[in-house]
Amino acid sequence: MHRILVREVVVDAPSATFAATRDFWAAALLSEAQEVEAFPEFTALPDAASMSWVGLQDIGPGPARFHLDIETDDVAAEVARLAGLGAVKVADGRTWVVMRDPSGLLFDVVPHESPWFAEHSREVG
Amino acid sequence: MHRILVREVVVDAPSATFAATRDFWAAALLSEAQEVEAFPEFTALPDAASMSWVGLQDIGPGPARFHLDIETDDVAAEVARLAGLGAVKVADGRTWVVMRDPSGLLFDVVPHESPWFAEHSREVG
Repeated sequence: MHRILVREVVVDAPSATFAATRDFWAAALLSEAQEVEAFPEFTALPDAASMSWVGLQDIGPGPARFHLDIETDDVAAEVARLAGLGAVKVADGRTWVVMRDPSGLLFDVVPHESPWFAEHSREVG
Repeated sequence: MHRILVREVVVDAPSATFAATRDFWAAALLSEAQEVEAFPEFTALPDAASMSWVGLQDIGPGPARFHLDIETDDVAAEVARLAGLGAVKVADGRTWVVMRDPSGLLFDVVPHESPWFAEHSREVG
């Protein structure tokens, strides 16, 4: 048995519009953009006006999209469960797995690290 | 002065894959899909394993996308503020306004209705 939580919305912006998009979302959500040191293509928006975390990713040529991160204490088990429900694995990231839903939308399964995981995650029965 | 909160992620699925996408996200997030009576193109996922609300919308021909809803107690003021930050107004919805960010991503500015708005929303200074 493992636990899951949708933790984050990521704004995937093409390099050409990344700076404008980052500055827009930081100001829109009353935050200050902060590059993630370990993963410089990612930018966090600390204390954004949001229930979930919101982050940005420079994806190079684009096109722009949003994606979701599903946080879990067992990435392999969650990827297997979601594949059984109809998702398709696309790629292995450094600590995460990229999948597509039945409409082709990208999302990631990521290891848990948010401070709310213990309280807000749900057990997969 | 008004308040804002990113309240919801909406999965916009084409009609052709809507049922499969709805059933996938409902099972993935440990919820049961519930059509929104007043707006039958929308489906809620009550008590989903998520910090934000997650919903679905049948968008007809597609393509699939995620969009965000920014909840506020003053839609007109928030639309004006976001336009000043670089967003472009796309359309008026029934109670909401559709905008695009600097990368072209769609999001909505919606009237507040979530039970967490008072506690979690942030004042636009």
